[in-house]
Amino acid sequence: MTETWVGFDADDTLWHNESYFMESYDLFADVAAPYLADFDDPAQAAHDLLIATETVNIPAFGYGIKGATISMIEAAITASGGAIPASELMRLINRAKAMMAHPVEFLDGAVEALDALSHHRLVLLTKGDLKDQHRKIDASALAERFDAIEILHEKDETSYLAAFARHGIDPSRFVMVGNSLKSDVLPILGLGGWAIHVPYVTTWAIEHAEEPTGAPRFVGPATLWDVPALVETCLGDAIENGDH
Amino acid sequence: MTETWVGFDADDTLWHNESYFMESYDLFADVAAPYLADFDDPAQAAHDLLIATETVNIPAFGYGIKGATISMIEAAITASGGAIPASELMRLINRAKAMMAHPVEFLDGAVEALDALSHHRLVLLTKGDLKDQHRKIDASALAERFDAIEILHEKDETSYLAAFARHGIDPSRFVMVGNSLKSDVLPILGLGGWAIHVPYVTTWAIEHAEEPTGAPRFVGPATLWDVPALVETCLGDAIENGDH
Repeated sequence: MTETWVGFDADDTLWHNESYFMESYDLFADVAAPYLADFDDPAQAAHDLLIATETVNIPAFGYGIKGATISMIEAAITASGGAIPASELMRLINRAKAMMAHPVEFLDGAVEALDALSHHRLVLLTKGDLKDQHRKIDASALAERFDAIEILHEKDETSYLAAFARHGIDPSRFVMVGNSLKSDVLPILGLGGWAIHVPYVTTWAIEHAEEPTGAPRFVGPATLWDVPALVETCLGDAIENGDH
Repeated sequence: MTETWVGFDADDTLWHNESYFMESYDLFADVAAPYLADFDDPAQAAHDLLIATETVNIPAFGYGIKGATISMIEAAITASGGAIPASELMRLINRAKAMMAHPVEFLDGAVEALDALSHHRLVLLTKGDLKDQHRKIDASALAERFDAIEILHEKDETSYLAAFARHGIDPSRFVMVGNSLKSDVLPILGLGGWAIHVPYVTTWAIEHAEEPTGAPRFVGPATLWDVPALVETCLGDAIENGDH
């Protein structure tokens, strides 16, 4: 029988991440809003401009702190028509350095979920800056709990499929646990796998997606405390149906 | 008998990379030198300041275009005491975007070397921005020639050892081919492997290292045209000696 695998996303699933980005976004709004005083809500206008800039830049820059920082600098220059002083831009660079050093703070129930599922094969499937992800994985001291760790440049069906091939993972015997409907849930369902959605308190605008409807292998929303029992139900169904 | 593996670095070994960075460094000197007019050689002073800034930032930011761009922006702000106009910094961001789209240009003999060595297991071992490396690997259309592709966040003994473990590579049956003494040669020799140094026309200051002396498993300098025969000699010795 094919082995059963459980995949975990890292950022905002096992540990806090987006909350740090939210602080960076607030700093960006602080830096850019004075130049957007003509808008009804300058802070919201700053936020919208940043998301528009990131949307353009991500296909080339990818995910993570460094790309976000360059997009913030670009958006601040745009907002100010080039008038922003360099010292203000330096605040954004210093913030990037602070983020690169932020502690790893587990979400409640994360370590307990891994403990409870240790009889399955476990794979960590994350995306973002390679260096920063390695730093957080090291700081988390969770690496040895996983049979495999994959830092992907994009979380779509193609890159998941390549990762599955590297480790001999059968999607129909695989459950993914993550906070992003777009990155952790929809591509896995598309490949015939199971997905448990564990929402984080906030979702980055670029990760927004609608919850799937009529998808029998989708479970959510759930908390990390529910995850072990939900995984067993999914994999029990998978084994009982014997489907491949 | 353990399989024989040949590892190839990518940037500046299979395809041009540092030459694009050199153009970026020249642009940076153009942007920063006007603020360093008190130095005998303002362009050199700009270059030195950038290398100093990158040396501080790389442990947090890692390698690649995005980190280099943030370091350039920071160094330009430092050089100008905060006086540099944002429009000048925007030139650095636009250059980053151009680099993210530059074509993949093979070095002479790269494809031929891979052809000649296809009866060994081949692994691509590179470092840098995850997104940019994937882009170049895709654009090169070389992925299917490799049995494994590893994008490392650092090329030191620890990260090579982890990659070797993932693919069951025995260092004593492994030859690495690369342009960097620091990243491609010294850590491999440290692990008991073989290394062939294929210098690129220029070396990034941060990658500088001295050629090893008294290292029997070191071969270099060589050209890519020499590599296939040199690999066979190394692996022939390895098999003959039967050492592990």
